[in-house]
Amino acid sequence: VTLLLTGVADRGGAAIDPAGLDPANLLAVKAEGRSVARAQGGVPGLHGARFLAQSQPHILLEAASTNFEDAEPGWTYAREALDRGADLVLASKGALVLHYAALTETAQKRRRDLRFAATVGAPLPVLEMADRVLIGVEITGFEGVLNATTNQVLTSMSGGASYEEGVSEAQALGIAETDPTLDVDGWDAAAKAAIVANAILGASLNLRDVRREGIRQVSSQALREARLAGETIKLIARAVRRDGTVVASVAPERRPLADVLGALRGDQMGVVFFTEPLGRVATTVEHTGGIPTALTVLRDVINVARARGWTSAGE
Amino acid sequence: VTLLLTGVADRGGAAIDPAGLDPANLLAVKAEGRSVARAQGGVPGLHGARFLAQSQPHILLEAASTNFEDAEPGWTYAREALDRGADLVLASKGALVLHYAALTETAQKRRRDLRFAATVGAPLPVLEMADRVLIGVEITGFEGVLNATTNQVLTSMSGGASYEEGVSEAQALGIAETDPTLDVDGWDAAAKAAIVANAILGASLNLRDVRREGIRQVSSQALREARLAGETIKLIARAVRRDGTVVASVAPERRPLADVLGALRGDQMGVVFFTEPLGRVATTVEHTGGIPTALTVLRDVINVARARGWTSAGE
Repeated sequence: VTLLLTGVADRGGAAIDPAGLDPANLLAVKAEGRSVARAQGGVPGLHGARFLAQSQPHILLEAASTNFEDAEPGWTYAREALDRGADLVLASKGALVLHYAALTETAQKRRRDLRFAATVGAPLPVLEMADRVLIGVEITGFEGVLNATTNQVLTSMSGGASYEEGVSEAQALGIAETDPTLDVDGWDAAAKAAIVANAILGASLNLRDVRREGIRQVSSQALREARLAGETIKLIARAVRRDGTVVASVAPERRPLADVLGALRGDQMGVVFFTEPLGRVATTVEHTGGIPTALTVLRDVINVARARGWTSAGE
Repeated sequence: VTLLLTGVADRGGAAIDPAGLDPANLLAVKAEGRSVARAQGGVPGLHGARFLAQSQPHILLEAASTNFEDAEPGWTYAREALDRGADLVLASKGALVLHYAALTETAQKRRRDLRFAATVGAPLPVLEMADRVLIGVEITGFEGVLNATTNQVLTSMSGGASYEEGVSEAQALGIAETDPTLDVDGWDAAAKAAIVANAILGASLNLRDVRREGIRQVSSQALREARLAGETIKLIARAVRRDGTVVASVAPERRPLADVLGALRGDQMGVVFFTEPLGRVATTVEHTGGIPTALTVLRDVINVARARGWTSAGE
């Protein structure tokens, strides 16, 4: 399959070329801290519906900063792209945790493909495992280390650092953002728990439905004590089906160091599915970050192309 | 997708019904130790080309006992099914390690789907991870615990049992066969290494190309020593691309107990892919055996149906 980048937008505007933009040119402009509106094909101030009308995408990749207040601008872009007949690949979480039912209904009604692998701990194949591997298997729940920042902070603290030093180290490594609130208070992990629960357990959870505790209360002392017992503390996101409803939570938990989740260090991530009859099915990845996340978006795009029959080998 | 079982064959003959056989009836007959030729629709002595002509399958599930001498009867069934225009789901390994090039060429020429997830450590999603998840990722190699019998024997020995006691225990648990030679001498793991190397590393290895050492030489003493160092011994199947060629091997290795493969106990299985830029990507399963293997065959069947557009939701 040949991919053509017909339009790209950022806060400053957009660049458009129906014949295909040059990624190298766009990257060079962004590397200088400027808007794509300054690149070849650039149009300052071009956004939203007008941007979609001009770029005419078959697939919209929506990767705006996640916004847990009103899911904008992603939510409007998502609806307008579906209305225009585009398939949708999401990298931002807002619309998925604030408007999941409306989003999936719209996609279904318009017969559009909706994928969001990059939102749930990219590059971990959480959704692909459920869709492609655990076929004929009952998934009763899952748990995972799905937030890189908190895992990096806990890893540093486990090595003797204070909470503040851990956060600084995660920032220096490019893992944590300048304001790490959404991560350390568990919002990011809670959003991931809700998205996965909705997608694979048939729940319809909103972000506020997830019981949430972050890592600010985890002390270096508690990590030292855990270590003496051959354990550590991890921020675990979990959802389980119980008596017909799905209960989701995010909280710090003690785990054995030899446990598949307990063994994850730095920005590594992992997920464990609770299944019948395969028991616990686990997947872990060693490297996360920008490039792995971008690859996960690409994975969704390729899988849309396969589903649409656009690839040379059909599926 | 609705699956219709139009024919089923065993050593004694076959049962045929174009309108669909009743699985419960077949299971009842097999539970009595009798051939399906004795079930409803049964035809004693019906085999091979005549069986395929009468059952007219869209998909052939080939699950004969694996035969590493001449790959029969699976190899002939596979070719005849492809010739008749059926897609092919293999659960036996013979044809894949003795005739891989011929098999894949025939499938490609006839534009038939060829899947064999159940042959490489079912229900581990080894091939699905490569095909569906590690998209845009360079896979440079893999290693895994892919043989249940040897892992069960080593787990027992690690708990103090002798090699002979370990084998007896694995047999009592229904994991090891009466003649465990193919497992304990590493043939089964070597076949899996070759199949995965061929499928995902583009190799064209035959079974004899895999350097192979089984577990008969592993002593209880060696396992005790490993344990004192926080390690254990696992039979590791591995293939890596090196200077343009793929080198595959099976051998016992010391692994830390906290390692993702070192932590696998009993008949658990796991695989680790070496990738760029995701690093080590691992998947493990807790329960293996007959039902998980059957589910893996079903997974292939569903994925064939999706690729063919037979499912209600397209792919």
